[in-house]
Amino acid sequence: MPIVRKKISVIGAGFTGATTAFMLAQKELGDVVLVDIPQAENPTKGKALDMLEASPVQGFDSNIIGTSNYEETANSDLVIITAGIARKPGMSRDDLVNTNAKVMRAVTEQIVKHSPDTTIMVLTNPVDAMTYEVYRTSGFPKHRVIGQSGVLDTARFRTFVAQELNVSVEDVTGFVLGGHGDDMVPLIRYSYAGGIPLQNLIPQDRLDAIVARTRKGGAEIVNLLGNGSAYYAPAASLVQMAEAFLKDKKRILPAIAYLEGEYGYNDLYLGVPTIIGGSGIEKVIELELTNDEKEALDRSVDSVRKVMQVLQG
Amino acid sequence: MPIVRKKISVIGAGFTGATTAFMLAQKELGDVVLVDIPQAENPTKGKALDMLEASPVQGFDSNIIGTSNYEETANSDLVIITAGIARKPGMSRDDLVNTNAKVMRAVTEQIVKHSPDTTIMVLTNPVDAMTYEVYRTSGFPKHRVIGQSGVLDTARFRTFVAQELNVSVEDVTGFVLGGHGDDMVPLIRYSYAGGIPLQNLIPQDRLDAIVARTRKGGAEIVNLLGNGSAYYAPAASLVQMAEAFLKDKKRILPAIAYLEGEYGYNDLYLGVPTIIGGSGIEKVIELELTNDEKEALDRSVDSVRKVMQVLQG
Amino acid sequence: MPIVRKKISVIGAGFTGATTAFMLAQKELGDVVLVDIPQAENPTKGKALDMLEASPVQGFDSNIIGTSNYEETANSDLVIITAGIARKPGMSRDDLVNTNAKVMRAVTEQIVKHSPDTTIMVLTNPVDAMTYEVYRTSGFPKHRVIGQSGVLDTARFRTFVAQELNVSVEDVTGFVLGGHGDDMVPLIRYSYAGGIPLQNLIPQDRLDAIVARTRKGGAEIVNLLGNGSAYYAPAASLVQMAEAFLKDKKRILPAIAYLEGEYGYNDLYLGVPTIIGGSGIEKVIELELTNDEKEALDRSVDSVRKVMQVLQG
Amino acid sequence: MPIVRKKISVIGAGFTGATTAFMLAQKELGDVVLVDIPQAENPTKGKALDMLEASPVQGFDSNIIGTSNYEETANSDLVIITAGIARKPGMSRDDLVNTNAKVMRAVTEQIVKHSPDTTIMVLTNPVDAMTYEVYRTSGFPKHRVIGQSGVLDTARFRTFVAQELNVSVEDVTGFVLGGHGDDMVPLIRYSYAGGIPLQNLIPQDRLDAIVARTRKGGAEIVNLLGNGSAYYAPAASLVQMAEAFLKDKKRILPAIAYLEGEYGYNDLYLGVPTIIGGSGIEKVIELELTNDEKEALDRSVDSVRKVMQVLQG
Repeated sequence: MPIVRKKISVIGAGFTGATTAFMLAQKELGDVVLVDIPQAENPTKGKALDMLEASPVQGFDSNIIGTSNYEETANSDLVIITAGIARKPGMSRDDLVNTNAKVMRAVTEQIVKHSPDTTIMVLTNPVDAMTYEVYRTSGFPKHRVIGQSGVLDTARFRTFVAQELNVSVEDVTGFVLGGHGDDMVPLIRYSYAGGIPLQNLIPQDRLDAIVARTRKGGAEIVNLLGNGSAYYAPAASLVQMAEAFLKDKKRILPAIAYLEGEYGYNDLYLGVPTIIGGSGIEKVIELELTNDEKEALDRSVDSVRKVMQVLQG
Repeated sequence: MPIVRKKISVIGAGFTGATTAFMLAQKELGDVVLVDIPQAENPTKGKALDMLEASPVQGFDSNIIGTSNYEETANSDLVIITAGIARKPGMSRDDLVNTNAKVMRAVTEQIVKHSPDTTIMVLTNPVDAMTYEVYRTSGFPKHRVIGQSGVLDTARFRTFVAQELNVSVEDVTGFVLGGHGDDMVPLIRYSYAGGIPLQNLIPQDRLDAIVARTRKGGAEIVNLLGNGSAYYAPAASLVQMAEAFLKDKKRILPAIAYLEGEYGYNDLYLGVPTIIGGSGIEKVIELELTNDEKEALDRSVDSVRKVMQVLQG
Repeated sequence: MPIVRKKISVIGAGFTGATTAFMLAQKELGDVVLVDIPQAENPTKGKALDMLEASPVQGFDSNIIGTSNYEETANSDLVIITAGIARKPGMSRDDLVNTNAKVMRAVTEQIVKHSPDTTIMVLTNPVDAMTYEVYRTSGFPKHRVIGQSGVLDTARFRTFVAQELNVSVEDVTGFVLGGHGDDMVPLIRYSYAGGIPLQNLIPQDRLDAIVARTRKGGAEIVNLLGNGSAYYAPAASLVQMAEAFLKDKKRILPAIAYLEGEYGYNDLYLGVPTIIGGSGIEKVIELELTNDEKEALDRSVDSVRKVMQVLQG
Repeated sequence: MPIVRKKISVIGAGFTGATTAFMLAQKELGDVVLVDIPQAENPTKGKALDMLEASPVQGFDSNIIGTSNYEETANSDLVIITAGIARKPGMSRDDLVNTNAKVMRAVTEQIVKHSPDTTIMVLTNPVDAMTYEVYRTSGFPKHRVIGQSGVLDTARFRTFVAQELNVSVEDVTGFVLGGHGDDMVPLIRYSYAGGIPLQNLIPQDRLDAIVARTRKGGAEIVNLLGNGSAYYAPAASLVQMAEAFLKDKKRILPAIAYLEGEYGYNDLYLGVPTIIGGSGIEKVIELELTNDEKEALDRSVDSVRKVMQVLQG
């Protein structure tokens, strides 16, 4: 049985998809197939080739190809979906949801056709609903369809806290439940610097400001860029989840997981603490919540369900 | 004497500059200041913040800021110039040269004002002439002004050879003299796979095709992208040179160095093999050339001088 | 101002010292001088050369030399002391203390003579007292003399917890105050997996067993080895502290720091949470303790003071 | 199909075996089983546990266990043999050969029994003959039994050249054929710094001295250590070969490969340039040799065959 490199397909060759592909290759997590629509095939090939040409300098032996042909994704160990559109001026939220859901369905059908045993990670917004859509379309068991939001939300939170305290980002942790961005439910009592609860280290008003900034973290970048949205931190977040899976690291990471009774919810994809290992989401970790936390989580769930209703309406 | 992190400024926050900044931070080579013009200040800040928000996930403690204010670059250990424009349809080559030379002069004045002891690396095209312009403007000793082209050209060459032979990119080396891209003078007899000269491993016509493809390596990416040019491999190349300098590695790398008699040329910046360490270019390595090689190099030098004449004309 | 590599001297070329030297070089944290007594000079040179011969394969450019001549350590940025003897059968604890204190004094005098501006990290046991002895002998400000114990104690604790929960070691944290090993005061309420307090995840009796095993962590290895003591995890712990200092990471790490009133103690080196950056120990973090914790810490301090009295007696 | 970590067994828990195990784990190449004889079971467990306790600090999720029970090695992807004795004073070379051959046979039987599909790498000396013995005992196809010598020999050579030229080890390459150490046949014309043949950079007498020193590289370390032999560079060399295999990197590395006509030899394990990928030795690269080189190689082969005759006598 010869050793065969892992294969990872990244759907969507925009900034986030491309950056994700490059980081996966740099870490030699596997060979990478970057996929976009036929109209974007040449630019996708161009990005992949440019990345590959960095490999001798950086010393990685991962192949990277660009394509619009899903046959090239056959037998992927992991597929990461970054495809979809961003909300444009004048576009209703429902239009965004319906458009991206359509993309999810089309993409998922292709993925499943060529890689029936793969695991899928989803970044496309609104990510809770889109992950659900991928799950429903794929027919995969729940542990093999995973959404990303909490790693990114906590990364932003940790950045702001590390700046506030002037300490290493390595020693700051954050904790979040629920939907992405505005809907996130931060659990400050489970957030630390060097293991010390942040409330002991940062005045409450500063902490509140940091949480507020985290909630709007995506918008802050959008506003600064003027034209486009964040992609470095989102890509890094996807890669951390991918690495946990591809190396069976059994990391405890916040992820959008399918719930069947956990936290009192059913038939829903929601951001919760999970263990990610070689089987995908190997466990959803349940926590006791305070009344305030549970109420905030309920509100977050309502918000997710409203988006899902658009799809089922 | 407390330990102080190195400081690196990257001038130009386009794709190459931004990617370079990110890779420098990922490697914890120092704190990074990403600089662009005032009109682009917010996007520059946005990119820097997005990168910084990846740090908790990737575990690096390098600060990254975006700015248009050169005061923030004060006392940089290294400044990397990626600023400048790309040639646009209808623009003459001379216009390109004059525009970018103007950028080089403006940028260099600011750099020198705030970091009089720094070392400068230049990527902006036409890079041989632009490096000369930075040298002339800065008044720096020659070892502290360095241009990049050979690392990238050989990276592309190595990629194509590794694909041809189906071997690791780590075991393929390339060797190039002279100007960037079209003007490059490849020394195939100094290019190997696992130490074995490539002529022993690859038929001459295939080698010729690989050299031809390498020469047009930049254009191949431009054509595929349709709108824009390569940035992953260029950024990786800059970072390798930056690392050689910042860690005093004394790497033998092709670089654009100021010649004072080496290879028979004077008062010229040209791509030659160098040793890059903590003093910048610590040595230009001279090689015996065959007549053919010397003639090709002469042609390359003519081409560089023609560009320089535009500036002095 | 050319870039100069950092210089790190490791005193004591036994297993821990040698392993520390190798890890420092692998990470390219600086050039390494491995020092032992004149009688061990050749083996020390042999180990250093063997390590250096691994550098082409592992791709690091750190020089490593072995010597018994402290002149070679001149102007070190960091000195790590691992020298000293282990307790032998029939040797009283006081004999051990006096012997190693003598080593500390001799070594420190040499260090200070050749590197008056350096920072010193101490591993030699009994480490709290030995760090104090180095501090006293050196005449250095307190922030530049640091002892290691808590990083190792929590590393063992984290290992056992990760095994218990079958999760990544990256997501488990531990927290300890006070002396090393038997004397350590674990703060379980500040120890987590994925940010979740361990009490919520592990039954109390299992947690108690893990704490007990951690306390005896050094002895467990000694008993298994039969002849010798742990060196991989101790070396890794030293290197983490060295990296925090040499990269000015401002990490929050447990370290043996000089106390002047913190936690109610004076003129004492004790294991406490600290911030380690480019100035050494940049801050001692004070925590509110419960009565039980404070009593346990008092006992730990008594134990440290008893060892110190041997020295002053 | 869940992702499962690779499994690597290292036979022999002496310094080289233990260091190899640790480096494999640090690189997260797989879970590691460190095996020694029953009498050494506890020290083996102690070393493994000590290494594992370094994992939280270094951030790797590879399990490491120590054992004397080959059942624990079941279904290894790779087995590395470092077991065997070193030559002791008064011991004839034939006694050494016979003793280690006996070890090879016993070890190989156990490996094959529990991991019939594995690939084996051999370090034990005299390594050419021992690799042959493992091959013969295992009944494995030739590509799945590989010996190490050339990576180490060239690592030493590269170290000495880098020192001579004061350049980065990353830019120096070496090339060697034939047996290990004294018997090695260096091909200086295929050895470079920055792609430039060493003869152009180093006077012949210095090159000769470097080659002579390389030949005696193992003895130099033995003489310095006084008691024991090299293990850092040997372990690093094994790990490079292991990584080439486990990541299917298709690296061009010197390795001890089974020859069936290549270079004019048959039924022999000899050091030659190879491509190592996911199938083990995927190719032996044949080179044209000069008469001198071929004669030197013949002498090296004679020497290997003499050792083999001891076994077959």
